[in-house]
Amino acid sequence: MEKEFVKAITPRSEDFSQWYVDVVLKAELADYAPVKGCIVFRPYGYTIWEYIQAELDRRFKETGHVNAYFPLFVPESFFRREAEHVAGFSPQVAWVTRGGDEDLAERLAVRPTSETVIGVMYAKWIQSYRDLPVLINQWCNVVRWEKATRPFIRTTEFLWQEGHTCHRTAAEAEEEALRMLEVYRSFVEDYLSIPVIPGEKSAGERFAGAERTYTIEGLMGDRRALQCATSHFLGQNFARSFDIKFLDVDGQLKYVWQTSWGISTRIVGALIMVHGDDRGLVLPPTVAPHQVVVVPIVGRDSERVLAASREVTDRLRGRFRVKLDDRPEFSPGWKFNDWEMRGVPLRLEIGPRDLAAEQVTAARRDTGERTALPLSRLEEGVAELLDEVHRGLYRRALEFRQAHTHEAGDLASLRAIMEGPRGFIRAHWCEKPGCEERIKEETGATIRCLPFGEQGEGRCVLCGEPARQVVYLARAY
Amino acid sequence: MEKEFVKAITPRSEDFSQWYVDVVLKAELADYAPVKGCIVFRPYGYTIWEYIQAELDRRFKETGHVNAYFPLFVPESFFRREAEHVAGFSPQVAWVTRGGDEDLAERLAVRPTSETVIGVMYAKWIQSYRDLPVLINQWCNVVRWEKATRPFIRTTEFLWQEGHTCHRTAAEAEEEALRMLEVYRSFVEDYLSIPVIPGEKSAGERFAGAERTYTIEGLMGDRRALQCATSHFLGQNFARSFDIKFLDVDGQLKYVWQTSWGISTRIVGALIMVHGDDRGLVLPPTVAPHQVVVVPIVGRDSERVLAASREVTDRLRGRFRVKLDDRPEFSPGWKFNDWEMRGVPLRLEIGPRDLAAEQVTAARRDTGERTALPLSRLEEGVAELLDEVHRGLYRRALEFRQAHTHEAGDLASLRAIMEGPRGFIRAHWCEKPGCEERIKEETGATIRCLPFGEQGEGRCVLCGEPARQVVYLARAY
Repeated sequence: MEKEFVKAITPRSEDFSQWYVDVVLKAELADYAPVKGCIVFRPYGYTIWEYIQAELDRRFKETGHVNAYFPLFVPESFFRREAEHVAGFSPQVAWVTRGGDEDLAERLAVRPTSETVIGVMYAKWIQSYRDLPVLINQWCNVVRWEKATRPFIRTTEFLWQEGHTCHRTAAEAEEEALRMLEVYRSFVEDYLSIPVIPGEKSAGERFAGAERTYTIEGLMGDRRALQCATSHFLGQNFARSFDIKFLDVDGQLKYVWQTSWGISTRIVGALIMVHGDDRGLVLPPTVAPHQVVVVPIVGRDSERVLAASREVTDRLRGRFRVKLDDRPEFSPGWKFNDWEMRGVPLRLEIGPRDLAAEQVTAARRDTGERTALPLSRLEEGVAELLDEVHRGLYRRALEFRQAHTHEAGDLASLRAIMEGPRGFIRAHWCEKPGCEERIKEETGATIRCLPFGEQGEGRCVLCGEPARQVVYLARAY
Repeated sequence: MEKEFVKAITPRSEDFSQWYVDVVLKAELADYAPVKGCIVFRPYGYTIWEYIQAELDRRFKETGHVNAYFPLFVPESFFRREAEHVAGFSPQVAWVTRGGDEDLAERLAVRPTSETVIGVMYAKWIQSYRDLPVLINQWCNVVRWEKATRPFIRTTEFLWQEGHTCHRTAAEAEEEALRMLEVYRSFVEDYLSIPVIPGEKSAGERFAGAERTYTIEGLMGDRRALQCATSHFLGQNFARSFDIKFLDVDGQLKYVWQTSWGISTRIVGALIMVHGDDRGLVLPPTVAPHQVVVVPIVGRDSERVLAASREVTDRLRGRFRVKLDDRPEFSPGWKFNDWEMRGVPLRLEIGPRDLAAEQVTAARRDTGERTALPLSRLEEGVAELLDEVHRGLYRRALEFRQAHTHEAGDLASLRAIMEGPRGFIRAHWCEKPGCEERIKEETGATIRCLPFGEQGEGRCVLCGEPARQVVYLARAY
């Protein structure tokens, strides 16, 4: 039975894509919904999202933001006001055309993002420079009609937060856009143990309606890149379309400067793809629904073992999210596999020998390493091990990314990397859209970002013209 | 300016309905959205909802529930599976008929509630008695196409939570339905200071598809009733329609027994209508975005007054949600009115005389009472006063309800009460649907609930036949 259990997950090395779906379904993170392209976030997966939400929300509030909630529906006329925006999002919109027993006079877009409906309200609320800055965030569901979907990574409906801010000056808005990118970077790196490359998007990859889009890009276990979060400097584009004006200190009526920024449930997909291994999910302790699982090794002396397991669990509860697995119908080995597959960072085994030695045996999920932990320093020992797992995951992911980041000087070497080891490719680009397009056509790689502070002499990887701009390229989700 | 400000709110006694809308808009709790029947939850209003969510979520988890997230859309064929349910909800459904560039083969209902889509998943997840109970809750938005809307109380889109549980036996499900009603009752009474009458709904007022609906009913300031939360014993109705079966301990395949239960942003409307007064909103300290506002009374000695105000604010921060209003452009009087209108439970005034006496002057929002609070016992004093406001609000609301609860023995007296003092009317009912309908036609009152444990000899308020069942009647939102 145990063997069969482990076999149930396709090895990651064999078929990454199938491994991913296996982990999502078997760890009960999500399930396919009876609606095309939608998933159900099952309790185990949703709990991870709850921890992500709680920590991000804390960081947003710490940086002065407040939450609000805007309508799910956007009347078509408002949706159409910002030309680039509507062009970018129209192909992905779900439309409500009937309400109750009547056909609607005007179709309602199910929000794919909320710049438009929020713009209408901001125009009403903002009059004077005293009303600025407006620093509002919203946690909600959005819908984008997608052709090819994948649990967490790309689904028709997903959950996210979208920040929407208004400022007096361009500089302030720019500062805000970068501040929020940094909030995302530190959250994703420090909290989720996922190393990312922060930078700017090329014009071709910009958010529809933005002047500049900033991004953090991570490298998944299959050496494809994933955009983990974005922050946009919107300039005055939406302000003009929605007439969001304020009376400035100098008595002049001016358009506000805006930003928007978002991170979605897609990041749960990143967690799976960056940290997971052949045995299944591996979770950083920060977002693990259970940080520690206690497994009694019953055989002889099972009464005492169970009592000690309960005692250990009770000692840890309050300080850690700990679960005692005392189900009599499963063997310890089966439980080991089950909790490993579900990514629990630390397992504590308690058997008769541990009892005799006044210890527990701790097994780390990330390395598989087992160590004896004296009961006398149980809490400190668990805290240290969890911390080591947390830091170890980041280190391992960073090493993986470093090992899979290559330099390419021309198209031939770029193509060779894409057909071989893949990963991130660092190259120079002349900033011509034509070269960007041809790179994609020829190799499947896209410009993931123009990294901050990395410029220098070089030649465009495609056309060979002199180019100062460094870019990271990758095949992306 | 100050006079004008207070005048901006229609007195509650003069026009309750207009007063309500004035408070909602001027306290910036919500605003009308550019979508028919929808509102925007502005940060001040949404923050109240966040505190409500956080506390309820804690109580749900304490009673063993976990959160999940199911899709917004329900394919029409699933939506139509439970006959009573679809009959009840169909007139209120918004339909998505187009996605991206194509007309959909099957229309998608925007969920008005999620029993159906959740039923599909439960059928898939539940196999054995070992999988039971399933205790899942969901926080989400729902849409019901409404003709007449009112901010918070009845809106096309609203926010809520919906619990959906499955059990082995009818008794367990019944116990769960009543447990969650009790969670709602204690939350609404103890946390929001709103007294409610718990009981069962008549068959005519039951949730579409339920076998029994339990409710808690509150009395608003205009002596109309508001259903504050409901909990349903669904029996096996949805289990049969969605084929949710499990292999029981006895080896038999059986349908599960289900419950569902919900509370929505409507409760924010109840907070406004129960506690508010002519000066505006009155918030219980538990859910007030600012529990304490510190207002420096500057004039002479303004430097020292401001310094002392900052010091007081700093001392309170961490333990209370405190705001220092040091805006130089507004007078203390204007600020008093402003924060009273926004319902802040406690105001601390600090002027030169307070400085000299080493005290602050505390003003309670609920009673307007002002007392000197020595700086030496600032924290304890504030804690005590907030606690008094909290308990005072409940007491006042309970007294109001008691003063507006009447007995009616026959239709004439019922009509007289409804045309006169209104409020809750306690009466007997023979349990015939015909009598229930005629009561409504003749008086506008509906049976709000059959209260628990109140039975006894009497005669039906309509037909005069002997009746043991006691009911509470009222005109309701």
